[in-house]
Amino acid sequence: MIISTKRGTPAAELDKIIQEFEGMGLGVTIIRGTDYNVFGLVGDTTILDEKRIRANPYVENVQRVSEPYKKANRLFHEADTIVDVAGVRVGGTEKVAVIGGPCSIESKEQAVRIAQLVKNAGGCMLRGGAYKPRTSPYAFQGLGTEGILDLAAAREATGLPIVSELMSADKIDEFEQYVDLVQIGARNMQNFQLLKEVGKMSKPILLKRGLANTIEEWIMSAEYIMAGGNENVIFCERGIRTFEKYTRNTLDLSVVPIIKQKTHLPIIIDPSHATGDWRYVESMSLAAIASGADGLMIEVHENPEAAWSDGAQSLKPEKFAAVIEKGRAIARVVGRGL
Amino acid sequence: MIISTKRGTPAAELDKIIQEFEGMGLGVTIIRGTDYNVFGLVGDTTILDEKRIRANPYVENVQRVSEPYKKANRLFHEADTIVDVAGVRVGGTEKVAVIGGPCSIESKEQAVRIAQLVKNAGGCMLRGGAYKPRTSPYAFQGLGTEGILDLAAAREATGLPIVSELMSADKIDEFEQYVDLVQIGARNMQNFQLLKEVGKMSKPILLKRGLANTIEEWIMSAEYIMAGGNENVIFCERGIRTFEKYTRNTLDLSVVPIIKQKTHLPIIIDPSHATGDWRYVESMSLAAIASGADGLMIEVHENPEAAWSDGAQSLKPEKFAAVIEKGRAIARVVGRGL
Amino acid sequence: MIISTKRGTPAAELDKIIQEFEGMGLGVTIIRGTDYNVFGLVGDTTILDEKRIRANPYVENVQRVSEPYKKANRLFHEADTIVDVAGVRVGGTEKVAVIGGPCSIESKEQAVRIAQLVKNAGGCMLRGGAYKPRTSPYAFQGLGTEGILDLAAAREATGLPIVSELMSADKIDEFEQYVDLVQIGARNMQNFQLLKEVGKMSKPILLKRGLANTIEEWIMSAEYIMAGGNENVIFCERGIRTFEKYTRNTLDLSVVPIIKQKTHLPIIIDPSHATGDWRYVESMSLAAIASGADGLMIEVHENPEAAWSDGAQSLKPEKFAAVIEKGRAIARVVGRGL
Amino acid sequence: MIISTKRGTPAAELDKIIQEFEGMGLGVTIIRGTDYNVFGLVGDTTILDEKRIRANPYVENVQRVSEPYKKANRLFHEADTIVDVAGVRVGGTEKVAVIGGPCSIESKEQAVRIAQLVKNAGGCMLRGGAYKPRTSPYAFQGLGTEGILDLAAAREATGLPIVSELMSADKIDEFEQYVDLVQIGARNMQNFQLLKEVGKMSKPILLKRGLANTIEEWIMSAEYIMAGGNENVIFCERGIRTFEKYTRNTLDLSVVPIIKQKTHLPIIIDPSHATGDWRYVESMSLAAIASGADGLMIEVHENPEAAWSDGAQSLKPEKFAAVIEKGRAIARVVGRGL
Repeated sequence: MIISTKRGTPAAELDKIIQEFEGMGLGVTIIRGTDYNVFGLVGDTTILDEKRIRANPYVENVQRVSEPYKKANRLFHEADTIVDVAGVRVGGTEKVAVIGGPCSIESKEQAVRIAQLVKNAGGCMLRGGAYKPRTSPYAFQGLGTEGILDLAAAREATGLPIVSELMSADKIDEFEQYVDLVQIGARNMQNFQLLKEVGKMSKPILLKRGLANTIEEWIMSAEYIMAGGNENVIFCERGIRTFEKYTRNTLDLSVVPIIKQKTHLPIIIDPSHATGDWRYVESMSLAAIASGADGLMIEVHENPEAAWSDGAQSLKPEKFAAVIEKGRAIARVVGRGL
Repeated sequence: MIISTKRGTPAAELDKIIQEFEGMGLGVTIIRGTDYNVFGLVGDTTILDEKRIRANPYVENVQRVSEPYKKANRLFHEADTIVDVAGVRVGGTEKVAVIGGPCSIESKEQAVRIAQLVKNAGGCMLRGGAYKPRTSPYAFQGLGTEGILDLAAAREATGLPIVSELMSADKIDEFEQYVDLVQIGARNMQNFQLLKEVGKMSKPILLKRGLANTIEEWIMSAEYIMAGGNENVIFCERGIRTFEKYTRNTLDLSVVPIIKQKTHLPIIIDPSHATGDWRYVESMSLAAIASGADGLMIEVHENPEAAWSDGAQSLKPEKFAAVIEKGRAIARVVGRGL
Repeated sequence: MIISTKRGTPAAELDKIIQEFEGMGLGVTIIRGTDYNVFGLVGDTTILDEKRIRANPYVENVQRVSEPYKKANRLFHEADTIVDVAGVRVGGTEKVAVIGGPCSIESKEQAVRIAQLVKNAGGCMLRGGAYKPRTSPYAFQGLGTEGILDLAAAREATGLPIVSELMSADKIDEFEQYVDLVQIGARNMQNFQLLKEVGKMSKPILLKRGLANTIEEWIMSAEYIMAGGNENVIFCERGIRTFEKYTRNTLDLSVVPIIKQKTHLPIIIDPSHATGDWRYVESMSLAAIASGADGLMIEVHENPEAAWSDGAQSLKPEKFAAVIEKGRAIARVVGRGL
Repeated sequence: MIISTKRGTPAAELDKIIQEFEGMGLGVTIIRGTDYNVFGLVGDTTILDEKRIRANPYVENVQRVSEPYKKANRLFHEADTIVDVAGVRVGGTEKVAVIGGPCSIESKEQAVRIAQLVKNAGGCMLRGGAYKPRTSPYAFQGLGTEGILDLAAAREATGLPIVSELMSADKIDEFEQYVDLVQIGARNMQNFQLLKEVGKMSKPILLKRGLANTIEEWIMSAEYIMAGGNENVIFCERGIRTFEKYTRNTLDLSVVPIIKQKTHLPIIIDPSHATGDWRYVESMSLAAIASGADGLMIEVHENPEAAWSDGAQSLKPEKFAAVIEKGRAIARVVGRGL
C-alpha cells in the first residue's frame, strides 16, 4: 500500500504515521519527493482500511498495490478450482457447462418438460426462478416453495442438477435441502448479510455480478462467501449498467480473462439477462465460449410470448439446441468439450 | 402504454394482440403507419409487464407513457407528505432537517458525546451505524445490537431521534423497538424481500438511492414499502456511480426537483457518502439546501483520523456547526427554516 | 413518433398541436386516456426535432417509434454493404479482415518491418498512427506527414492497404492521396464538422465509437458521413467508458449483432484499445469473431516495452499470428473465412 | 509515480528499470515487498507516459502520485486566476457572472431583443449558438457567420460581451474578430487539434466538460490550451452521461469545490444543458451558486415552444430574472455579489 502525504506535512506527523504502521507489524519505506512524501507499506495490508487512513488530514492519497482479496486470489492458489455441482464439474479444463431453463417456474409440468428439452439439447443443468426479484411490487413474484419443489421434480425426471436464486436468509434450509447450485442475484451481490449466511452452506454458490459493481468488488463478495467457509463459488457475468439503450445491460466479456487471471474460480456467462433480447443470445453465447468462459446460463422457454416473465430474452428449445451445437464447435477450437 | 409492432405483422396477429388487451379491460387505439403499426393502451397499465409484451415476436417496442408507480405518484396525491420522525417533521415547508453523527458507533460515550455536539450545533437527529455494509469481510462490521443500544442512550441523553441502517430482516424487532428512522442502505435498495418486510413496520423509512439505480427504480422501491402499508418514506440521495475518479460517487442534486415533481415524499441529501471527502461537504450541503432538499445527513466525528470507518468524509463538530449556520441563511432564501 | 400531453391540457391547445403536425404533412391519431392524451404521428418523422416539440409546455413526453436514421437503416436497404478498401472487401460474408500494426508509426523501417510481419501472419491491412490524440499536451503527438509517408512506403513494400487516423480537416488532401481507410477516432465521433468533410471524401471511413456514445448516436454519425455522399462506412467498436477499473474501457460486443440488425454496414472490433492490456487481446479477438464481427484491428509491435505509445496493449508478432490462426478456426464455425 | 513489478521479476530486470529512470534524471526508491517490489520515482514525472511503462512485461501497475498537469495546477499557482471577458471579470471573489441567451441565434432582431432582456434581468453576457453541434445531419445546423454578426449587433446594442461555440479551426479568424468568450463544446473537449489552435487565440476560452470525461481529463484539456499560450480558460460543467433517464445528463456540482482545489481557474455551471428541462433550471442554478460556482450559463428564450432548438430547456425572460434575484441572495450568503 502506498500512502502519499501533503506538501508541508510536519516531520513529527510523518513520524507518527510511521510509528502507527510499524506498530501494526508493517514495514515502512519513505520516499521523499519535492511536492509530496510517499510511504510504502510492506506486509499484510488486507487488514488496513483505506478510508480510515485517508481521514488523516496530512494524507493526500492512498493506493493499494496488492489486491484486497486473499482466498480468491490466484497469487496464493495457482491451480484452477473445479466446482462440483451434484456431479457436474465446472471450471479448469472441464467441459463448458450449459445451464438452460425458464426465467420463472410456472408449474411442475412446465419444469419437467423444459428440463427434458434442455437435457436433449445438450444442457447439463436446469435453471428456474421460484423467488423472483422484480422492480415492481405489482409484478409476479414467483411461485416460492412450490417452484422449488417443481424444480426438484424436474431433476428427479431428468437427472439434471438444479439452479435457483436465493433472495433471503429465511429460505436457506429449503435451498440447502433441494437446490444444487444456489444463485445470488445481481441485486444481492452486496447483500453482505446474505453472503455471510451462504458462506456457511454446503452447496456451491453462483454469484452474479451486480449491476454496477467493479470486478474487484465482485471478487470481494466471493471472498465474503469463502471467508465464511464455502469455497465453491462460481462467478456469473450478466451485464452491467451503462448509458446504452439498445440493450438491457452491457455484457462485459473481458471479465472472463480477468477473472481467470486474478482468481482461481470458474466463471460463466448469462447472455439472456445481459442483452434482454433473444436475438442477440446466440452471438453472445458463442463469443462467451470463444473468450474462455466455463459455462453459459441461457433462458429457454417453449412459448416465450406466454412466459410469465422475461419472455423477450428466452430462446425456443430448437434455437437453444442450435446454440449448443455451434458452441461445441467453438469450444473445440479453444480446447474444451461441451 | 404504447406498443409498436413490426413491419409485415399479419392482420390476424394484430387482432390477437388487440383482443388480449381488451380482455384485460384496457382500451386499445391503433395507429397505422407505413413501417410500423402502433397501439395505444388506455386504462391501468401498472399491472402490465413490459417484458412479457415484448416477448411477442411481432412486437418491436414497448414504451410507457404513464409512470409505473401509484402510491408514490404526485399525480394521485397532490399534497406534500410530511414524515414525522419521533416528533421531527420532514418535508413540505417544514424546517430543513439536519441529521448528524458518526459513520460507525464506537461506544456509548462516543454516541452520547457526539449527539450532544450535533444537538448544540443545531442538528435535529442523530445518525450512527451499528450494522455496517463493508466491501471487505475483513473490515469492521459494526457493534451490532450494542451500537443500537448506545444510540438509544444518546437519544435518552439529548432527545434527538435516532437513525440507523437495517441490513437484514432478522433485526426488524430490534429496530422497531429502538430506532426512530430506519435506513435502507444503497446496496439494499433492491433487496425486495427486505423492502417488503419494512413495509410492515410502524417506523418511517429512510430509503437511500442505489449506486446505479435510476430515479424510477428508486421510486419503485418506495412503492414496494408503501404497497406493504408503510407510507412514511423519505428518499436519501447519496451519490451514484460514474466514471469519475476524483470523488467516491457523483452527487446527483437534480433528483431534488425531480422527486418533488414526480412524488409527494420528502428527500434529503447525504453529501458525506456522495463525495467521500470532508472538504467537499460544506459546498454540497449548501447546494442541497439551495436546490430545495428537505434535509441533510452529514457524518460528524470529533477525531476523524481515529474514526473506525469513513473518517475521511467526517466533519469535525465545529465545521458541522458552521455548515448549519450558513445553511440556515441559504434555507431562508428558499423560504425554509433550519 | 408518440407525443403525450399533460393532464388538463385545454382542447384548444390539443387542436393547435394537431394542426401544426398536419401542416407538416404528417398524419395524426389521438388516443384519449384518463391521465394523459397521446398523439401518434405517421409519416417521415426524421425531420422532427424532439427537443423542440418537448418545449411546448403542454407536452409531457416525446418518444420515437422509428429510428432517426435513413441511409444507414437496414429497413430501407436490406442487403449487406460490402466496403472495398483498396481491394480488400469487408462485410457481408467476406473473409474476416484482420488489420494489424503499431499504435504509432516510429520510422519507415519500423513501418515496413511490421507490415511484413503483419502480412506474413495473415493480416490484410496495416494500421499505424501518424497523428495521435493524446490526453496530455506533453506526450508524443505522432510523426505527422512523415508517418503517413512511412505507411505508404510499407504499403509499397507489402501491398497491404493502410489505415490511419485523421484528426483535422486540414489534412484531408493528404489522407485522400495516401490513406486507404480513413479512421475517425473515438474522440472525434461527434466532431460533426469533420464528419461532414469526410462525407465528401472518396476513401472509405472507419468510424470508431465514442467513449460514451450510444449505438444510436454512432449510427447517426455514420448517417452524417453518408448524407455527405460517402456511403462506405465501417464501424469500429473500441470499448466504452464505465465504472470498471481493471480494464481501460469495457468492450461491448453486443454491438455486433445490433449493428447488423439495425444497419447494413460492416463492423469490426479493436480489442487492443478496448482492454488496454495485451493479455486480454486474444480472448477478446476470438470472442469478436465468434460474435459475427467483420474484422479486427489489433496493435502489433515487435518490442512493445519500447513502443512510443500504448505498448501495454500491443501483441508481439508471433502472438498476433497465433490469434489469427485460432481466429481462422473460429471464423470457420460461424461460416466465414479469414 | 509509483511502479509495482510482478512477483518473480529477475534482479537484472529491476536494475534495468532503475537505470532507465535514473537516466531520465529521476530519483528512484525501491520498496521490497513479499509479493511485489515497488519503485517510487521522484522528479518531474509529467513527462512520463504511463502506458509506455506499463508495456514492460515485468511491470504490474503504474500509479501517479502527483497530478499530470502543471500550468493549471493550484500547487504551482496559489492565487485565483481572474479571467477578463471584455471587461467582465470572472473568478476569485468577483461577482457571480450570469450568462443568458438563446440556444440558437435565429435573427438579428431576436438576438438584440433577448440581449436586452438578459441585460435588464441582471445578466452580464449574452450567449447564442451560430454553429450548432447536432446529432442528426437533418437537424438545423445554425446560421453560421450570419449568427455571429447578429450576436455582434446585440453586443453593439447592449454592451454585453458575447459567448458562442467554435466548432472548427477554419472559423478562428471570425471568432477572434467578433466573439468575446470562445466556447469549446462538450463534444470537442478532446478535439486536441482544436485545443491547440485556440491555445494561440487572444480571446478567453470557455471549456465545457465532455459528456463522459473525468475531471482530470478536463483539466488536461485546459492544460493543452494553456500550453499553447492562452492562460485564460474558464471551465463550464454541463452534466455528464450516466444511466439516469429522467434528466438529459447528470449535473455534477461536486466539480465546483474540486476544480477550485486542484486548479486556480474559474468554473461556471450550465444547468440548462445539464438537465434538459427548464423546470429544473432554477433549483440547479441556486445550488450552483451555493456550491461556490463563479457563474452560470442559462438558456433564455421569449417563446421557448417556437425556439429553433432546445426550447424545452429555455427559461422565459421573467423566470430568468427571478432566478437572478434569488441567486443574488444566495450569492450574498457565500460572500459573493451577483
